[in-house]
Amino acid sequence: MDEVYVAGIGMTPFGKHPTQTAADLGAEAVLLALEDAGAGRDDVEAAWVGHVFQGMAMGQRALGQAGLSGMPIVNVENACSSGSTAIFDAALAIRAGAYDICLALGVEHLSQRFRGAFTPDESDAEAHIGLTMPAVYAMRAQRHMAQYGTTAEQLARIAVKNKYNASLNPLAQFKNPVTLEEVLASRLIAEPLHLQECAPVSDGAAAVVLTSRRGRDRLGATRAVRLAASALKSGRSEVGLPDMTVEDLTGRAAQEAYRQAGIGPDEVRFAEVHDCFSIAEALRVEGLGLFPHGEYPARVARGEADLGGRLPINGSGGLLGKGHPLGATGVAQVVEVVRQLRGDAGARQIPGARVGLAHCRGGKAQGVEGTACTVNILVA
Amino acid sequence: MDEVYVAGIGMTPFGKHPTQTAADLGAEAVLLALEDAGAGRDDVEAAWVGHVFQGMAMGQRALGQAGLSGMPIVNVENACSSGSTAIFDAALAIRAGAYDICLALGVEHLSQRFRGAFTPDESDAEAHIGLTMPAVYAMRAQRHMAQYGTTAEQLARIAVKNKYNASLNPLAQFKNPVTLEEVLASRLIAEPLHLQECAPVSDGAAAVVLTSRRGRDRLGATRAVRLAASALKSGRSEVGLPDMTVEDLTGRAAQEAYRQAGIGPDEVRFAEVHDCFSIAEALRVEGLGLFPHGEYPARVARGEADLGGRLPINGSGGLLGKGHPLGATGVAQVVEVVRQLRGDAGARQIPGARVGLAHCRGGKAQGVEGTACTVNILVA
Repeated sequence: MDEVYVAGIGMTPFGKHPTQTAADLGAEAVLLALEDAGAGRDDVEAAWVGHVFQGMAMGQRALGQAGLSGMPIVNVENACSSGSTAIFDAALAIRAGAYDICLALGVEHLSQRFRGAFTPDESDAEAHIGLTMPAVYAMRAQRHMAQYGTTAEQLARIAVKNKYNASLNPLAQFKNPVTLEEVLASRLIAEPLHLQECAPVSDGAAAVVLTSRRGRDRLGATRAVRLAASALKSGRSEVGLPDMTVEDLTGRAAQEAYRQAGIGPDEVRFAEVHDCFSIAEALRVEGLGLFPHGEYPARVARGEADLGGRLPINGSGGLLGKGHPLGATGVAQVVEVVRQLRGDAGARQIPGARVGLAHCRGGKAQGVEGTACTVNILVA
Repeated sequence: MDEVYVAGIGMTPFGKHPTQTAADLGAEAVLLALEDAGAGRDDVEAAWVGHVFQGMAMGQRALGQAGLSGMPIVNVENACSSGSTAIFDAALAIRAGAYDICLALGVEHLSQRFRGAFTPDESDAEAHIGLTMPAVYAMRAQRHMAQYGTTAEQLARIAVKNKYNASLNPLAQFKNPVTLEEVLASRLIAEPLHLQECAPVSDGAAAVVLTSRRGRDRLGATRAVRLAASALKSGRSEVGLPDMTVEDLTGRAAQEAYRQAGIGPDEVRFAEVHDCFSIAEALRVEGLGLFPHGEYPARVARGEADLGGRLPINGSGGLLGKGHPLGATGVAQVVEVVRQLRGDAGARQIPGARVGLAHCRGGKAQGVEGTACTVNILVA
């Protein structure tokens, strides 16, 4: 099967964009990615577009606005991992030899739809009686605290780290670092999680041009980065499983990705993971095997996950700092990993970064089937 | 690249299902398809699920209810061609050699969401001021009448034919034939289209097990049918194009499908096409090159598209007779084509059927980008 490369990346600023539509944002990211890849509109043979709430035929509208039409366009939805699922599908098609040059776009205009917190849909009866996302992650945080002696301060430090990283990222929603005291003084949403430990409502888009080796060479994309693994798994939320601090689904997706890439977690030099809440970052990196189970919050407090640390996590600012426009998030993570591997990350550059991982998951809060998880691994 | 086969088919009755959820319907179709393929739950390596309005992670919920979990599951949306897009994606993955046995499921519980006619979404300003789907197809019908002398009676005969075919299909929403007089006496929705010429609000699900040659042999699916082509194209509605009786998008998808299958339209023996309105069937079959442009309504009146005619169209009853649960429709069309190719179509069997085509399209009504079209060709 063909190798897959990321030949171009594009991303809008994340934040509140009241004067732009989702199609505007999507078109902007697509044009940036094409320019970065040195590709014309006619080079794109097919596209997959991840979003959650943007209505029928979003991808066709956004690509049409960027002047792309005619090719196969597929809208994909896998909750918060919709964008990374678009990458999964596009990568499959390239591995098929079906196409040489494809687009994966993720886009979401969340502030048009939600004023404050994300409201559960009609099918989610348990969320309607209180089992919302903050409640679920607060329960998982409490369990992590009870089992491993994790403290509220240690969790808050994850937010401090990510908002500091975001202050180095010109495209991030939050521009200013926050102190530990500020995080702990922010409104308590669901104990022990404070407002500053919850991902914000965001608008934005991100796109990547994916190619085969032949497509890469045709574009002359000398700075292309290899997508060594793209894994997708499904399952259920950990709520109701024997130990809700163990990310079984993340672990299964990671095992598949490590197998595809032919590497182990010890070879991963940095990662972007799905930190929808401070505790979520801990659950993810422990599930990925990047840090010993139960130890991550304490290690963050020792600086191990800082940009200058042993294994930088969410150098982009993550969802907590960069923002979380649902469909765009999984693609933006890959954009960031590519930037790092190219040495283009500016003030947040991780020296000598050669292998980076992007992890994304999303779906139902309660312990039923309805959750998806992706792990992409990129190699310079 | 690997050949792709349909090794198993499953479909719920189409109609109003107030006591079942979308997940119930999806699970039922999946279990029927697995049984038909002689496949167990563990045989399925990945799944694509088409729907439009069923909320986050629908596929994971439906498959979970059928006892399938863990594998990659992708929800796809391409308006009324969502189900056939799921088939397109699954077929790509099999051609990739990525998997040997995949599921494509289409599902929609439309009556839970709409009481009467389909309402346009917020992004569709022109639909809000009247350019709804019936209005668009009425305009196209008027144009067909003006250019080709098509009559309201000829269009109504398309509905008569399809509702008769549906009366032979135990899974169809409409059980009784209607007369030409009854169609013409039904309420005028948008001149010249009467209520009986418009697809109904429907609930239902359909699933297919797609395999490589190796997967087919592993299952021992001796009745598998080859999916010789699966094409997807995007574009804009014909409203605003120079001649709105010409289905440019359908034509482009068909050309790609004929190329993949290595056949011409003259080799197609029967077809299931997207007859959301009576006139739509005419526009589709003329766009596919199956009938001369402008002549279809007159030829229907002569019986050429009847089950016993030269080229039977919508032998299942089509959307007008079988029903139209959006996401399920494109998969149900392929289910019907497989039934015919196997000789399992009972009272509506087309003798000697060897090559069948399924056509599906959907998207925005007005002349902007936002429309998708699929053509699948199957060979016994």
